[in-house]
Amino acid sequence: MSNADVAIIMGSQSDWPTMKHAADTLDQLGVGYEARIVSAHRTPERMYDFAKGAKAEGFKVIIAGAGGAAHLPGMTASLTPLPVFGVPVESRALSGEDSLLSIVQMPGGIPVGTLAIGKAGATNAALLAAAVLALSDQAVEAALDTYRAERTAAVAEFPSNDAL
Amino acid sequence: MSNADVAIIMGSQSDWPTMKHAADTLDQLGVGYEARIVSAHRTPERMYDFAKGAKAEGFKVIIAGAGGAAHLPGMTASLTPLPVFGVPVESRALSGEDSLLSIVQMPGGIPVGTLAIGKAGATNAALLAAAVLALSDQAVEAALDTYRAERTAAVAEFPSNDAL
Amino acid sequence: MSNADVAIIMGSQSDWPTMKHAADTLDQLGVGYEARIVSAHRTPERMYDFAKGAKAEGFKVIIAGAGGAAHLPGMTASLTPLPVFGVPVESRALSGEDSLLSIVQMPGGIPVGTLAIGKAGATNAALLAAAVLALSDQAVEAALDTYRAERTAAVAEFPSNDAL
Amino acid sequence: MSNADVAIIMGSQSDWPTMKHAADTLDQLGVGYEARIVSAHRTPERMYDFAKGAKAEGFKVIIAGAGGAAHLPGMTASLTPLPVFGVPVESRALSGEDSLLSIVQMPGGIPVGTLAIGKAGATNAALLAAAVLALSDQAVEAALDTYRAERTAAVAEFPSNDAL
Amino acid sequence: MSNADVAIIMGSQSDWPTMKHAADTLDQLGVGYEARIVSAHRTPERMYDFAKGAKAEGFKVIIAGAGGAAHLPGMTASLTPLPVFGVPVESRALSGEDSLLSIVQMPGGIPVGTLAIGKAGATNAALLAAAVLALSDQAVEAALDTYRAERTAAVAEFPSNDAL
Amino acid sequence: MSNADVAIIMGSQSDWPTMKHAADTLDQLGVGYEARIVSAHRTPERMYDFAKGAKAEGFKVIIAGAGGAAHLPGMTASLTPLPVFGVPVESRALSGEDSLLSIVQMPGGIPVGTLAIGKAGATNAALLAAAVLALSDQAVEAALDTYRAERTAAVAEFPSNDAL
Amino acid sequence: MSNADVAIIMGSQSDWPTMKHAADTLDQLGVGYEARIVSAHRTPERMYDFAKGAKAEGFKVIIAGAGGAAHLPGMTASLTPLPVFGVPVESRALSGEDSLLSIVQMPGGIPVGTLAIGKAGATNAALLAAAVLALSDQAVEAALDTYRAERTAAVAEFPSNDAL
Amino acid sequence: MSNADVAIIMGSQSDWPTMKHAADTLDQLGVGYEARIVSAHRTPERMYDFAKGAKAEGFKVIIAGAGGAAHLPGMTASLTPLPVFGVPVESRALSGEDSLLSIVQMPGGIPVGTLAIGKAGATNAALLAAAVLALSDQAVEAALDTYRAERTAAVAEFPSNDAL
Repeated sequence: MSNADVAIIMGSQSDWPTMKHAADTLDQLGVGYEARIVSAHRTPERMYDFAKGAKAEGFKVIIAGAGGAAHLPGMTASLTPLPVFGVPVESRALSGEDSLLSIVQMPGGIPVGTLAIGKAGATNAALLAAAVLALSDQAVEAALDTYRAERTAAVAEFPSNDAL
Repeated sequence: MSNADVAIIMGSQSDWPTMKHAADTLDQLGVGYEARIVSAHRTPERMYDFAKGAKAEGFKVIIAGAGGAAHLPGMTASLTPLPVFGVPVESRALSGEDSLLSIVQMPGGIPVGTLAIGKAGATNAALLAAAVLALSDQAVEAALDTYRAERTAAVAEFPSNDAL
Repeated sequence: MSNADVAIIMGSQSDWPTMKHAADTLDQLGVGYEARIVSAHRTPERMYDFAKGAKAEGFKVIIAGAGGAAHLPGMTASLTPLPVFGVPVESRALSGEDSLLSIVQMPGGIPVGTLAIGKAGATNAALLAAAVLALSDQAVEAALDTYRAERTAAVAEFPSNDAL
Repeated sequence: MSNADVAIIMGSQSDWPTMKHAADTLDQLGVGYEARIVSAHRTPERMYDFAKGAKAEGFKVIIAGAGGAAHLPGMTASLTPLPVFGVPVESRALSGEDSLLSIVQMPGGIPVGTLAIGKAGATNAALLAAAVLALSDQAVEAALDTYRAERTAAVAEFPSNDAL
Repeated sequence: MSNADVAIIMGSQSDWPTMKHAADTLDQLGVGYEARIVSAHRTPERMYDFAKGAKAEGFKVIIAGAGGAAHLPGMTASLTPLPVFGVPVESRALSGEDSLLSIVQMPGGIPVGTLAIGKAGATNAALLAAAVLALSDQAVEAALDTYRAERTAAVAEFPSNDAL
Repeated sequence: MSNADVAIIMGSQSDWPTMKHAADTLDQLGVGYEARIVSAHRTPERMYDFAKGAKAEGFKVIIAGAGGAAHLPGMTASLTPLPVFGVPVESRALSGEDSLLSIVQMPGGIPVGTLAIGKAGATNAALLAAAVLALSDQAVEAALDTYRAERTAAVAEFPSNDAL
Repeated sequence: MSNADVAIIMGSQSDWPTMKHAADTLDQLGVGYEARIVSAHRTPERMYDFAKGAKAEGFKVIIAGAGGAAHLPGMTASLTPLPVFGVPVESRALSGEDSLLSIVQMPGGIPVGTLAIGKAGATNAALLAAAVLALSDQAVEAALDTYRAERTAAVAEFPSNDAL
Repeated sequence: MSNADVAIIMGSQSDWPTMKHAADTLDQLGVGYEARIVSAHRTPERMYDFAKGAKAEGFKVIIAGAGGAAHLPGMTASLTPLPVFGVPVESRALSGEDSLLSIVQMPGGIPVGTLAIGKAGATNAALLAAAVLALSDQAVEAALDTYRAERTAAVAEFPSNDAL
């Protein structure tokens, strides 16, 4: 059994530069995770096995990123009772609009909590996973409070040309 | 303190025919909830008070539905550490495409787990909330398993003209 | 083993009014087919079993229709070497634009030959399946020629107000 | 009390390269302004305090720029009786289409006068603010007339390859 | 000289069912207005004369509604120093997306403060015009405060099935 | 040889309710025309023959209407030196956005002068054809002037609730 | 009176890199033209004067290019009986989709024959203007035939890696 | 008669960098093909001759790529009984959205099996053509199995920063 609470899965190595932001954010929050490549299309059996076994492996939340006709988050959600958060990876021709619609427009019955396209979405998937874990984990709850307080404190009051 | 785990909030009474599907689904699953109208634009103070106090009220998950320039889910998420799930309500002119983008495209730092536009999204927000609660509530876990099993069982194998 | 050359699968009974046009067209052409409900999301195991076994069952072409975050055609294509043709079913809020992008924007490696949104697409999926079968089946080849000739002959030369 | 008539607010330092064009245009027109970073999502309390107090501070018009799920203009408008003009900042994946819809599609009751995406919109927000101030300030009225006359005069009659 | 502060102009009689909401809102606020049909395309001279003379006629704010390739708001803005607020009227085929882009995407130099597509936008154009007038008219300022307070008070706290 | 100056062609009888507005407008202007059904897809030979022979038949301008993947205007333009004006017919799922892009986005070398989606576009195609003919036909020139003057005169100055 | 048959007008010097392709194509065809900057928004009077006088100046066809909320082609068309062809110039944020809709979606009564976005559209506007002139000018007719024949002849039969 | 089973046609040499991926994939699979430039717009007769004769030439499947108002796949499909697979080539302004809609939205009666925009679509057109051929060609069937197995095997299990 894994001692990671969060699984970060993605359809391809090429999604990693985006999904790495989820991993980095979980690192900042001290949340254990495991990142795997689980292609819905090229390794459907691996996806089935992963999704069917994710709960037994000890994962509590799954973050799934994919681009284009992005089926990984929804298919994973259909195979596990765990909450699944989807990250639309920016696609080349359509800039992730296809990824977004393929992930968010799930039919009633199988939810995928979808975040923004690209890096912001990956970061936010990690924060949302942490918010879920924080419901029963005081260390994560505290880490999340600190993270948010630091970000709030980091907002300058006046814009500066120095940053241009 | 509320004994409801889930708060269902919406910007307007006109969102209720959509958001009612979230309530109905939570009813089916035996999950306690409270539904409130909390307009980001017409009652911003009520929204602030609600969002700042939601955790202390005992809520664990917030489902927020809104249409058009839909600011309720994101603003609520900025004011609470609880997980927030957003439901884009179908808008008149743009069919909910505006609602969807206003909710899902949150900047890094403040996540809203976004579901599909309209009824399916409201149903799925409830299911996702239940999946989160099920991590630490065996009754919800069991109810969710039953719900999914029933839906799977209800899928006929062959299409029938009788239903046309 | 089935004696149908074409499998028509769809995610839900509600897709049948669209997909029926594929069935009707195959009827017109004398091509054997079998229509099944195989939900990628509600019955993922049934989908796996169907797709993995479709070739052994004797199917030669698969027509798959689905709407919204439409994963059935692409997931089926990832599990079978048979040619898969996808029909985007018109969705409520986004009129099938989500269905179209979810089906057509497959990553390199797993093709789905995608047809138009809705009824025209279902009809054309049947005609494309027949065109594939016609490569090695002279009866289908002849039926297809007749079908096209009849349609060409049915085009009037002048528009008529009678039809308004 | 501020002796600036216009407040330029933005969600983040990264919006400044766009919003600077509003500041520069107000400089050209001799209109006093103050530019602040007021993030709806990271500093919601600061936004509340600013918007609730903007009129008392002596501001007459508010220009608010934001990108993605851009909630700052609309939320500010819900908290102040002052006219609010919104500038959709160009976003990475969706080129500001999300910003535009999040700002312009406000529900009946809370208006945001929305300008074009990006630099042109920021410039125009300043001009529109000046047009409002000009209703009761002859110096601004005269400055605006001069600005427009100069721009008209600057339009060449024939295109020139020299500029390519 | 007109004793109306606001001119409501529109491209066609067919825009009146939308623009009437601007007139009704100004009525509620006790703001004087005059509504005219001024087609940019069918009566360009009337538009020129109106726009060039609007300030001399005594108007302080112009609300302009148009649909499709909606040129009235922008052309009016190019011919008057008064603030112009544009209302994209819902178009048949494209639901007002064409109207919105034709109005909001003005080049730097000529601003049109654009409101939402359709009825909400017309209502909000009136409220924004009133907010501008309120800067130097205490009666309008008070009427606007009352309007907003009434709308806030009218928001129920809990959704009700009675309204379905 | 035809004594009609304008050919109105369309892909299907179902396009006639739209294209009839082109015919009606030409009738009003006293311009001779002939309306034919020439399907690019179902009767490609008829289209070739028509387009190759249109100039010899005596036509001076071609108006072509089609919907969906609308190939008729562009293919006709590739086969004739005559000016071709295209009318995007409103399609079911995508409201004519597909028709518009399929007609207007022609590559450099083969122009199609494209009008608005639907009825307005059909009317305007007739007016544009008449404007072309008017360059060398004083009767059409005069008819067009009258048509425009009548339309200008028909614009009321004030909107009326009677028309609601 | 001008001895140019075609007027090429554009909203700004920045449109010239696109509109130059219209000029170059007319040069190739030996068609006389004059290129002017006529901003609908910054020089509305110049636009009025130009459009009202274009026919008397001797122009037969007007090519108008503009970007964003592109009002020049439609406004010109409302002020002249000459045929007007519109070129949507590629805009920064929305890639010319706004330009296209602002030009093509004209209401019934005032046509603008719209070409593709950008360079191809500018080239094609010239070709369409030439096709109109060729109806009564044999030199242009011949030049157009030659142009098309050369382009046809220039199409290689097989693709070559040498060109990559 | 050609001894190639697949014809790869494209509208222009500029489509070759995209369509080359179809050729490369067929090379990998050992499937014979011939690549030709067949412009629907610049060489319509060549297109007619090719499409009418493709079956007699011995081709079994046609892959057609085109961009913008992409008429080649659909027109070819209207002239041959062979299965036609369309590849939307990425266009400059609209990123291939125009290409996609022009190809996929065919009317009932004339199917084009459409693949993804750009390189992935070209690769997949080749794989789909091979899947069709594999129905009656064991060598292709085996090659396809190998291709898919190799791609599956090439998917790493864990993402690696080395690849960034």
